[in-house]
Amino acid sequence: MLTNSFSVNEKGHLTLGGADTVELAKEYGTPLYVFDENDIRNNCRQFKDAFSKYYGGNARVYYASKAFSCKEMYRIVKDEGICTDVVSGGELYTALAAGFLAEKIGFHGNNKTPDELKYALQNKVGRIIVDNMTELYLLNEIAKEMNTHQDILFRIKPGIDCHTHEYIQTGQIDCKFGFALENGEAYEAVKAVANMQNLSLAGIHCHIGSQIFETVPFIDAADIMVSFAKTISEELGVTVSEINFGGGFGIKYTLEDKPVSKDESIKILCGAVKEACQKYAFPHPTLCIEPGRSIVGASSLTLYTVGSIKEIKGIRNYVAVDGGMSDNPRYALYQAEYEAVVANKADKPRDFIATIAGKCCESGDLIQEHTQIQQVQQGDILAVLATGAYNYSMASNYNRIPRPAAVMVKDGNSRVIINRETYEDLVKKDV
Amino acid sequence: MLTNSFSVNEKGHLTLGGADTVELAKEYGTPLYVFDENDIRNNCRQFKDAFSKYYGGNARVYYASKAFSCKEMYRIVKDEGICTDVVSGGELYTALAAGFLAEKIGFHGNNKTPDELKYALQNKVGRIIVDNMTELYLLNEIAKEMNTHQDILFRIKPGIDCHTHEYIQTGQIDCKFGFALENGEAYEAVKAVANMQNLSLAGIHCHIGSQIFETVPFIDAADIMVSFAKTISEELGVTVSEINFGGGFGIKYTLEDKPVSKDESIKILCGAVKEACQKYAFPHPTLCIEPGRSIVGASSLTLYTVGSIKEIKGIRNYVAVDGGMSDNPRYALYQAEYEAVVANKADKPRDFIATIAGKCCESGDLIQEHTQIQQVQQGDILAVLATGAYNYSMASNYNRIPRPAAVMVKDGNSRVIINRETYEDLVKKDV
Repeated sequence: MLTNSFSVNEKGHLTLGGADTVELAKEYGTPLYVFDENDIRNNCRQFKDAFSKYYGGNARVYYASKAFSCKEMYRIVKDEGICTDVVSGGELYTALAAGFLAEKIGFHGNNKTPDELKYALQNKVGRIIVDNMTELYLLNEIAKEMNTHQDILFRIKPGIDCHTHEYIQTGQIDCKFGFALENGEAYEAVKAVANMQNLSLAGIHCHIGSQIFETVPFIDAADIMVSFAKTISEELGVTVSEINFGGGFGIKYTLEDKPVSKDESIKILCGAVKEACQKYAFPHPTLCIEPGRSIVGASSLTLYTVGSIKEIKGIRNYVAVDGGMSDNPRYALYQAEYEAVVANKADKPRDFIATIAGKCCESGDLIQEHTQIQQVQQGDILAVLATGAYNYSMASNYNRIPRPAAVMVKDGNSRVIINRETYEDLVKKDV
Repeated sequence: MLTNSFSVNEKGHLTLGGADTVELAKEYGTPLYVFDENDIRNNCRQFKDAFSKYYGGNARVYYASKAFSCKEMYRIVKDEGICTDVVSGGELYTALAAGFLAEKIGFHGNNKTPDELKYALQNKVGRIIVDNMTELYLLNEIAKEMNTHQDILFRIKPGIDCHTHEYIQTGQIDCKFGFALENGEAYEAVKAVANMQNLSLAGIHCHIGSQIFETVPFIDAADIMVSFAKTISEELGVTVSEINFGGGFGIKYTLEDKPVSKDESIKILCGAVKEACQKYAFPHPTLCIEPGRSIVGASSLTLYTVGSIKEIKGIRNYVAVDGGMSDNPRYALYQAEYEAVVANKADKPRDFIATIAGKCCESGDLIQEHTQIQQVQQGDILAVLATGAYNYSMASNYNRIPRPAAVMVKDGNSRVIINRETYEDLVKKDV
């Protein structure tokens, strides 16, 4: 089992958060996204608790809502007392519509539009993470016009890149996000902000990758960021009080994945920051992180109904489901790995090698290739696990397929948090 | 210029279908999809006319609406007197909502759900293209229950694959779509349908790839399909009256692309079919094709407003626009190539090498890398050309970015055919 949220009940059915997934499929239809609320809440608490333990609680956790943005997620996260980050006016709108306090919101993005910046200022978001010089001048201009003041962070490229399990300490300057350190961009930006009346540099930010399974990159990032904070404090008289290390904490997508625990990740990050502060004689900053996938990704699944099955001798077995790249484009985009289970036969051995195909009219519409599932037949319920992050949020209406509903389960009970789209919804914007 | 629809006016602005794209951006905002109606209509006519010229008009052209499905597209296609194919209940719903005659609709898909099949039968669609044995039995069962009769085609894998400009005559059996010829699947399906009371095999169908720039694959496909039609006629007494060769006709995405003209493609296809009919002593079938991209793809564009620009010395120049993989995921998915033009400087040389980045919070959110555009600055309007197919249809709300509006231009006039999504739209299904 990927996480403790998954189990198999006496009927041999896969359960998530105590709910029988076969019953969920019957009640709500398929495809269906399902999330375990207790696990989401536990994940928030584990990050918070670790900061209390290892850093005296001088920290803020921002849920990176691009992983899964809907009103109920913001409510849950708010209820857990953590902050959220948004990356567009639409995410900001959703968070505010759910009652999220603006002061607990950080606003990200490499190309925020003037309208989005105005919208953020009007609502007095807590932090805007400024990505580039164009934005810096634009934001200061708008803040001046609106006669307001904004706390900002600079997004820094620390020269560390650890996407796809590889840790590279060069080349990250070739990235659309942020100010590079190595060519002096970041330093120049600090110089510029020091003279701006309507903006204050509250801190600096970096994000070193996604689905990270190592701790060394965070240790290196801590050193680089504290060192830069010290430099600008000494040389430019700009002392930042917070450092945001972004997200990227890996989760278990497959049984082979070995992510570092939240406690261990935070312990190492806090240790590294404290060490760097000692090394550079810099006061302990407020620490911030932005976990998304590691809050919402692991204890979740998508339920599909199995349709046609093609056993092509000597080639492969195609098992077609009633969704596909329209609800989960991550395999088509990144060849992302997932575990799949026949939910109504979860107590049986996974001794059938299948390629799970979607129903979109496109050869590349596959959800997983050559993966082990139980012996399967038409009408079975297939669960693809750990689809909570970057599935609903990346879903499309490709082939005019309505987007699935999403359900939250808690202690065996379930409730709809996103309604299924209808055919009528599909034509609503059509003239 | 990619097609005759594009031009540059006296202000140095890029025009499409006689409309000044800079003015369109001002009037409707960005991002904005723009289509040239005259070109779409011409494309429909060119296919029809070619069949008249080379096959006595015994043919049907189906617009493959997955390329771009919205009510107005079905209206235009209907007005041109051609048919359409749909690949889901949602596309069928949209076509019917636009007043498309059901008998002129073909229904495709590798995994149609029972509900979709019922919906198609209720509305009496002209053809259902049956993909596999599971569907065949299911459809016959449903037709029996509904006491109705349905004309079907079988989707055949002819053993030809010419995706991505490569023509391969093996291995296409490894595909989620259709009945293979080589292992006898297709033959067995014909045997089975011969005994079904509620279904009739009107024809056979194949689709050999996308964005095809050659003619040999169509010649080979004609031989294979007619040969199979002859075999089942002789051996099983099932004589089909139509053969559908699917779509795949390539378009000009870049100035280097050299697609075969519609006239030439149809001439060669018709010639090949006639030759095969003579060779196998088989009567000339009704010919069908399903062009999508080649109807709607080429004379179209997406308009963006340029935001931040990052010239990273020795690395590359990032030009960020106010859309991205949310409105055009084809670069992220397939590294698809496009031409880009600074619409308000279209008369200037394209002497600046840029990577066009989107505004999504993802490093891979690029629309084109290392492409030549004009010298560009913040606030310029950037046009990405030939985005009519598989852009709006694949668009998502990733990062909760509202999907753009779409506009049809005709002889310099413009009208909205899809309204822009609002923030309110984004939360409509949220509980």
